[in-house]
Amino acid sequence: MTAISKHPSRSAGGGIGNAGAIDVRDIGSFHIGGRVSTLRGMPGRRRVSTPNGAVHPVDPNGEIVSGQMYVQYVRLARPRSRHPMLLWHGGGMCGTNWETTPDGRPGWQMYFLRAGFDVLVSDAVERGRSGWAPWPEIYEGAPYFRTAKEAWEETFRFGPAGSWHPEPARRRMHPGLRFPAEHMEAFMSQFVPRWSCNDERTQAAYDLLVATQDHRAILLTHSQGGQFGLRAALHAPARVAAVVSLEPSGAPDPLAGDARMLRGVPHLFVWGDHLAQHRFWAESMPRVRRWHEALLDAGVDSTWLDLPSRGIHGNSHALMADDNSDAIAETVLRWLDRRSLRAPEAASR
Amino acid sequence: MTAISKHPSRSAGGGIGNAGAIDVRDIGSFHIGGRVSTLRGMPGRRRVSTPNGAVHPVDPNGEIVSGQMYVQYVRLARPRSRHPMLLWHGGGMCGTNWETTPDGRPGWQMYFLRAGFDVLVSDAVERGRSGWAPWPEIYEGAPYFRTAKEAWEETFRFGPAGSWHPEPARRRMHPGLRFPAEHMEAFMSQFVPRWSCNDERTQAAYDLLVATQDHRAILLTHSQGGQFGLRAALHAPARVAAVVSLEPSGAPDPLAGDARMLRGVPHLFVWGDHLAQHRFWAESMPRVRRWHEALLDAGVDSTWLDLPSRGIHGNSHALMADDNSDAIAETVLRWLDRRSLRAPEAASR
Repeated sequence: MTAISKHPSRSAGGGIGNAGAIDVRDIGSFHIGGRVSTLRGMPGRRRVSTPNGAVHPVDPNGEIVSGQMYVQYVRLARPRSRHPMLLWHGGGMCGTNWETTPDGRPGWQMYFLRAGFDVLVSDAVERGRSGWAPWPEIYEGAPYFRTAKEAWEETFRFGPAGSWHPEPARRRMHPGLRFPAEHMEAFMSQFVPRWSCNDERTQAAYDLLVATQDHRAILLTHSQGGQFGLRAALHAPARVAAVVSLEPSGAPDPLAGDARMLRGVPHLFVWGDHLAQHRFWAESMPRVRRWHEALLDAGVDSTWLDLPSRGIHGNSHALMADDNSDAIAETVLRWLDRRSLRAPEAASR
Repeated sequence: MTAISKHPSRSAGGGIGNAGAIDVRDIGSFHIGGRVSTLRGMPGRRRVSTPNGAVHPVDPNGEIVSGQMYVQYVRLARPRSRHPMLLWHGGGMCGTNWETTPDGRPGWQMYFLRAGFDVLVSDAVERGRSGWAPWPEIYEGAPYFRTAKEAWEETFRFGPAGSWHPEPARRRMHPGLRFPAEHMEAFMSQFVPRWSCNDERTQAAYDLLVATQDHRAILLTHSQGGQFGLRAALHAPARVAAVVSLEPSGAPDPLAGDARMLRGVPHLFVWGDHLAQHRFWAESMPRVRRWHEALLDAGVDSTWLDLPSRGIHGNSHALMADDNSDAIAETVLRWLDRRSLRAPEAASR
C-alpha cells in the first residue's frame, strides 16, 4: 500500500471545500473492546414487544456485553493518505457530531473523506450505537442528561450566563456567534445521556482502536474526546501520526505523563472564542495549556491555535458545527499537509 | 430527476454480489421528530467530566429533546432507483444490524447501495444514535437489556431451549444453522437497551420519515421494525413503493386496518427456519400470516416467502447476518425488480 495515489479521487480540488462525489470502497462498522458480564438475582418481567404481539416473558438474568465501542468506517477506493483519520466526539454526544451540521451543511466526516482520508467515526463507550449497560449492576453510577441551558450557557458558549430561554426569540447569544443558533433544537437532538464512571472503559476501547489500525492514525478529537486522544497518543506514540484536539476539556498531567515520548507525534490544539467568560472553560483551558507547554518543553511539535488571536471571532465550543466549520477544517488540513500526512495531488489535475 | 441513470454506477453487475466501489454523492444524517420537554424538581449534582478536569456543577432541570429519531443516509452519485430504501431494524437493536455482519462480511446497507439504491438507515426512537430520555420523567417504564440466552434460544433461534451456554464450546445450535455462531459475542455487542412504552413515539417518527421523502420509499424492516413498517404503509399508502418485512414480530389487526388501501403497495414477507419450535415465533407468525391473508383478500400484491419450503434451510431470525445473507438480499432485489422499482442496467454494460 502506498500513500500516493496514481488515481486521484474526485474529491474537492486541493482539499478546499466540502462538495462533490467520492469513490467509496466500503462502508461498514464493528464493535471493539468490551467484555461479557453475567447479571444475576433480578426478578422476572413480562413484555409485549409489538402492538397486537405475543406476551414475552423476560428473564433479565444472564450474559450481556458491556464496554464495547462502535466504530463506523468509510474507506475510499483511492485514499490520498495511508493514515486513517479517527474522529472522536465529546461528552454527552456521539459520532453524529461529525456528520451533517445542525443547519444541514456537510460535516467534517465528509470534509476529510473529500480530502482523501479514510474516516472512522466512533461512538464512545456508553454512547450512541455502542449501547450502554445497567446500573448499579455494571456501571457504578447513574447517567446525566444534558439540558439546553447547560449546553447554551456553559459547555458550548452560545451565550453568557442567564441568556438561555425556552422560547427561541428570547434567547440571547454572544455577539457574532458563529453557531447556527436558530437550529438549537436540531443540535439538542444530538445529545445523548452520559455517565462519569466510564473513563477507563472508554480509554481502553480507544487504545485498542489505535492499536489495531493498519497504519499510524490521525486522532481528531473534540472536548471530552480530547483527553482520550492525548492519552491514547501517550500510551502508543508509535501508533499515532498526529493528534488534533478541538477544545479538549482535559489533558494529561505533565507531572504524570512523560511528554518526551511524543517527539514523533505532532499536536494541534484549536480554540474558539469567549473562553474566559465561562467558568468551566476558564478552569479547563489552563490545564490543557500546561500539557501543550510540557510538549513544547519536551521538543514535541505542538501548535496552539487560538482563533480569536488570529482575527477569527465568534466561534463556540461546537467548532465543527459553527458556520465557518469548513474553514476550520481547512486550517486543520493545511496543518496536516505541512507535516506530509497526505499525498500531494497528482500533477495531472 | 429520473430513475434511469445514463451513467450506471460501478456497483456489482446485475445487483448480484456485495463487492466493488460505489460513487457516493453524500453521506450524512439528521434527526426527525421529537419534542422539547422540561425536567423540573430534581436535585443538583456535581460531576468531573474528564480525569484531571474541572468539577462541573450539574443542574439536571431544564429543557431536553425526546422522541427524536436518527437517520443516516448514503446517497449515490447515480442511483438506479428514485425510491429511497429505508432500513428499519428490530427490537433491542439499532441500525448497526444493516452494516457489516458479526463475522465481518458486508451487510445489506452496502448490498443495496451496490444495487443502486440510496439507503437510509435509522435508529428507532430510544435506540443508538437517537439517544434516550429519563424515566419516569419522560418514558413511562424501565428499559430491558437483552441477554445472550434469550437471543440464542428464543428471539434469534440459534438453538433450541436449553442450548445456550456461557462457554462457546458448550453451546448447541440448530443443525445446519446459518448464523455464524462463533461470532456470538460480536453480535451481542450490537444489542442496545429497549423500552416497551415507546411504540407511539417510534411510529410517529417513522411516519414522519416516510412523509418527508422526495419519492415513494421502499421500507425494508426486520422483526419489531416490521410492525412499524406495515403500519407506516397503512398510514400513507401513497408514500410507499413497497414493504419488505423480514420476520416481522407483529402486524396490523385485519379487523382494525383496512387492507384495501394498500392495493398499490406490494408486500413481501420473508421467513427463516425452526419457527414452530420457538414459542414466541409460534405465537407471533400466525398473527402476521393473518395480515398477509387480509392483504391477499383485499387484492394486494403480497408474497409469503417461507425459505425452508423453497429448500433453503437453517436460517435464523438474523436473516441479514446469516451466512446466506447476500443470497437472501438478492431474492429481495429480484422481487423488487419484478415490480420495476429499479431501472434496468444500461445496455452499454
